[in-house]
Amino acid sequence: MTSYFLNNPHKLVSLTYFAKRYESAKSSISEDLAIIKRTFNVRGIGILETIPGAAGGARFIPSIGEEEAERFIWEMAAELSQENRLLPGGYVYLSDLLGKPEVLRHVGRLIARQYMGRQVDAIMTVATKGVPIAQSVAYYTNAPFVIVRRDSKITEGSTVSVNYVSGSSQRIEKMELSKRSLRRGSHVLVVDDFMKGGGTINGMKSMIEEFDSELVGVTVFAEGVVDEGSRLIEDYTSLLKVDNVNTLNKTIHVSAGNYLAKVFGKRTE
Amino acid sequence: MTSYFLNNPHKLVSLTYFAKRYESAKSSISEDLAIIKRTFNVRGIGILETIPGAAGGARFIPSIGEEEAERFIWEMAAELSQENRLLPGGYVYLSDLLGKPEVLRHVGRLIARQYMGRQVDAIMTVATKGVPIAQSVAYYTNAPFVIVRRDSKITEGSTVSVNYVSGSSQRIEKMELSKRSLRRGSHVLVVDDFMKGGGTINGMKSMIEEFDSELVGVTVFAEGVVDEGSRLIEDYTSLLKVDNVNTLNKTIHVSAGNYLAKVFGKRTE
Repeated sequence: MTSYFLNNPHKLVSLTYFAKRYESAKSSISEDLAIIKRTFNVRGIGILETIPGAAGGARFIPSIGEEEAERFIWEMAAELSQENRLLPGGYVYLSDLLGKPEVLRHVGRLIARQYMGRQVDAIMTVATKGVPIAQSVAYYTNAPFVIVRRDSKITEGSTVSVNYVSGSSQRIEKMELSKRSLRRGSHVLVVDDFMKGGGTINGMKSMIEEFDSELVGVTVFAEGVVDEGSRLIEDYTSLLKVDNVNTLNKTIHVSAGNYLAKVFGKRTE
Repeated sequence: MTSYFLNNPHKLVSLTYFAKRYESAKSSISEDLAIIKRTFNVRGIGILETIPGAAGGARFIPSIGEEEAERFIWEMAAELSQENRLLPGGYVYLSDLLGKPEVLRHVGRLIARQYMGRQVDAIMTVATKGVPIAQSVAYYTNAPFVIVRRDSKITEGSTVSVNYVSGSSQRIEKMELSKRSLRRGSHVLVVDDFMKGGGTINGMKSMIEEFDSELVGVTVFAEGVVDEGSRLIEDYTSLLKVDNVNTLNKTIHVSAGNYLAKVFGKRTE
């Protein structure tokens, strides 16, 4: 049953289903569920909701414990503060980390935890580097992800496009999303790997409006340093924050973003 | 323990670790491992390898049962045969499916099953649509994935580039991979969403040579229809196969690829 829940997050499963599958009495299934519930809770794996009644059953909602969240974020901060990660223009090399399954599993659980009680119908991101983040969040929320592209491809079919102002370069750019990939009236969570000015995020917000849908929230893996007043969006969450880049000495310093404060009420300063 | 194994595939865990974590005697841990092993096996979840001795422990290797594999592939074939999936040029609209976590979980387990006994140090794919496939395989093999790009970005640092001939258009194209994303001497598994002529796959093969690395195998989600003799690669596996496209009537027919035959010795004709 543990394995079934972990592979089917957010899916309501009836006791009858388990009783048939394991050829057991409902009463022993109930006892086992209580044990799983306690273990998931103690280990910070997630919440096992049990819903009584004929239409009831159990549903697994993945999460992460405070201690594990904090440890992971500070480990990442130390990793990103290595000077060989600094790239020209104040960017940070992240591709290796965002290709590691154990990093992505943590990122997915962290973001799923943040939006645990909210309705999320789709995860939106922009190609290419946001995709791993979106997929890992999709994995733990069991919502599909959609990829906005800067260049449309034949394999997307008809698309809707919006223009947006890039925060860092102040240029007008265009992004497109396949028409059939998002249903009107969806609740959409926006995620990305790195945010500087926030122009790309703003573009995705306009895209969500184009699809008559609603923004649930914005969470990025890392936010970069920007000049005072040049950030285009205010309401966002970041797991990590680049707080100092010195391109002369080639040093970089990364610390925890506002995630820990927002989700666990932690002071990170 | 079940949850620990599922979240840490391919990782050798000592009995001592579990004994400490759960404050239990090693003998009861051993008994529980035997139960988990049997259940994983019966349900086709995977193999629990137990290694005796002081340096021993247990390792979970994800897999998928034959029945589940077959059911999933034929379900996908029926889904892809819907005529509204046909795009101009004989391409098939896949983006929605490759954004669904339950589809990706199956694809990941199928491909992980195929390369179960082989050493895989990295999964390679090309941006953007191959990324979800690569990530899901990475998830179940616990190997990192690397993304080859057609356009290099500032955020990749220095790159290695190769030229290749696109199979369908016969044009010379270029692809790039960040220098630090792949270690020399790696065993690399190549995956992609869709293969027509195989030019892109060939490009990735050259890239693997550039990194003094070794190709483990090539597996794609779906292969398209190509003219006789214009396929550039021979040794590959496909989960699905587009076997008939009629652009006039706008009909498409998709069946199982050679995966079932190769992995389970099934006849699919």
